[in-house]
Amino acid sequence: MDVASRIELALDAAILEAEGMGAPPRLAAAMRYAVFPGGARVRPRLTIAVAKALGDDAPGLADAAAASIELLHCASLVHDDLPCFDDAATRRAKPSVHKAYGEPLAVLAGDGLIVLAFETLARAAILRPERLGSLVRIVSRAVGMPMGIIAGQAWECEPAADLREYHRAKTGALFAGATMAGAAAAGADPSAWGTLGEKLGEAYQVADDLRDVASSAEEIGKPVGRDAALGRSSAARELGIAGALRRLDELVDAAMASVPACPGQEELRTLIRLEGRRVLPKELAQVAA
Amino acid sequence: MDVASRIELALDAAILEAEGMGAPPRLAAAMRYAVFPGGARVRPRLTIAVAKALGDDAPGLADAAAASIELLHCASLVHDDLPCFDDAATRRAKPSVHKAYGEPLAVLAGDGLIVLAFETLARAAILRPERLGSLVRIVSRAVGMPMGIIAGQAWECEPAADLREYHRAKTGALFAGATMAGAAAAGADPSAWGTLGEKLGEAYQVADDLRDVASSAEEIGKPVGRDAALGRSSAARELGIAGALRRLDELVDAAMASVPACPGQEELRTLIRLEGRRVLPKELAQVAA
Repeated sequence: MDVASRIELALDAAILEAEGMGAPPRLAAAMRYAVFPGGARVRPRLTIAVAKALGDDAPGLADAAAASIELLHCASLVHDDLPCFDDAATRRAKPSVHKAYGEPLAVLAGDGLIVLAFETLARAAILRPERLGSLVRIVSRAVGMPMGIIAGQAWECEPAADLREYHRAKTGALFAGATMAGAAAAGADPSAWGTLGEKLGEAYQVADDLRDVASSAEEIGKPVGRDAALGRSSAARELGIAGALRRLDELVDAAMASVPACPGQEELRTLIRLEGRRVLPKELAQVAA
Repeated sequence: MDVASRIELALDAAILEAEGMGAPPRLAAAMRYAVFPGGARVRPRLTIAVAKALGDDAPGLADAAAASIELLHCASLVHDDLPCFDDAATRRAKPSVHKAYGEPLAVLAGDGLIVLAFETLARAAILRPERLGSLVRIVSRAVGMPMGIIAGQAWECEPAADLREYHRAKTGALFAGATMAGAAAAGADPSAWGTLGEKLGEAYQVADDLRDVASSAEEIGKPVGRDAALGRSSAARELGIAGALRRLDELVDAAMASVPACPGQEELRTLIRLEGRRVLPKELAQVAA
């Protein structure tokens, strides 16, 4: 089965559990709405790519790890879009969850997706119980305090934010969690795989900054120019478009170099190089080519 | 060490992890504020009571399970108090988290506490990895969809709510999770221990309804008369105070009867009987005596 299908099926299986007997129907609908149709599924593709490079001896667990990472990403989008944060009216080219279902259900949908992420890991680990502890620790570190994406979002509430810390937590942490979870799901030592995720997370952030200044709203499905409007730092504004493109190349090179020795090392490096181009908005990909 | 100290120390250890290097200080403070000083810690006391009745062969894991349950309870209080739900200005006799820290940090504090609950389990299970899967499944079922406390809160957003389902999810689920987690932490089959938690959860709900109609706001540290104001169902209003007291007695008896055979069966039953009185507001405890 191709990677995209594995991810969508694993996410669907997780959401089906949440929709089980006795579920309040509107919250169940809001959770499904928050997850489908998805965005690029960058993080879970990374999880499965790492598991495959390592032999993928427990594909069900790799799929669950990928789904868990994506459920947490979706949860963070739902909560970040709330009126008290970005107050975003659209996400993935449709109304944001709180616009479609109201604020109470958006808060609960985010909460429910966080819990579902951990439940999904525990369910899939029944056949590989010795791998669960590592997976839960990786995922919670990527998301929670002191350095995960929740901490990253909280830096927006501090009077003086360390911008490096902010970006590392806000984006890098879940990317590092994605690669490390792929390794842990495949029974490998995850610690060697964190750098790959961190570099790709930084690359993705630069690409996102470039999209924010260079794309049309239709192409990315959410409002553009938000970073400037919200006073956020942006590599594209700090380095210029050409400088940011160079930075992106450096980060993709560093990511490729960081891939530890493993059966699928070369294939994974190729994938990373292609991905580095794919995340750019169309116009910039042509400029960079 | 007495049970109360075990719980406070386990909660402090968990929050200390969240406050670690790199943490955004205001979110760290909001999370600690949400957990300390605590309420009656009814649920974690139940977790440890069950573990003790079963021999408590892994006290560190029982403490972590108790802390996990209480962190999730605190998270639900923080989110339930938000302006889009109860809009509560006070909680545990001090300003609610969003009044003290603002709405964005209240959302993130709840999110962070949910993640921390799972991380706490995984950390403590390093010495007993074979017990982690069961604990994560119990805890996520108690909290998430389709039947946990998040589902319970979501019934308030449905046009037609099944009141039995609502109460079972909103209160009973986390109590059942508390007793089952105590059993799983002590290496016992948790399935025999769910009824005890369910009955006690129902009893606690009846006692809460009685407090809501009979107590002063000073005694319970939050506004009273909220159930009527919010159009919620209430055993005290449906059965009258005398009828609700009888119902409470029946539930406590059923809870005592449900305790499975185990080394500490008698001691646990005695504890439950005392607890059944302790949860009543002062004036009613005198009436009932």
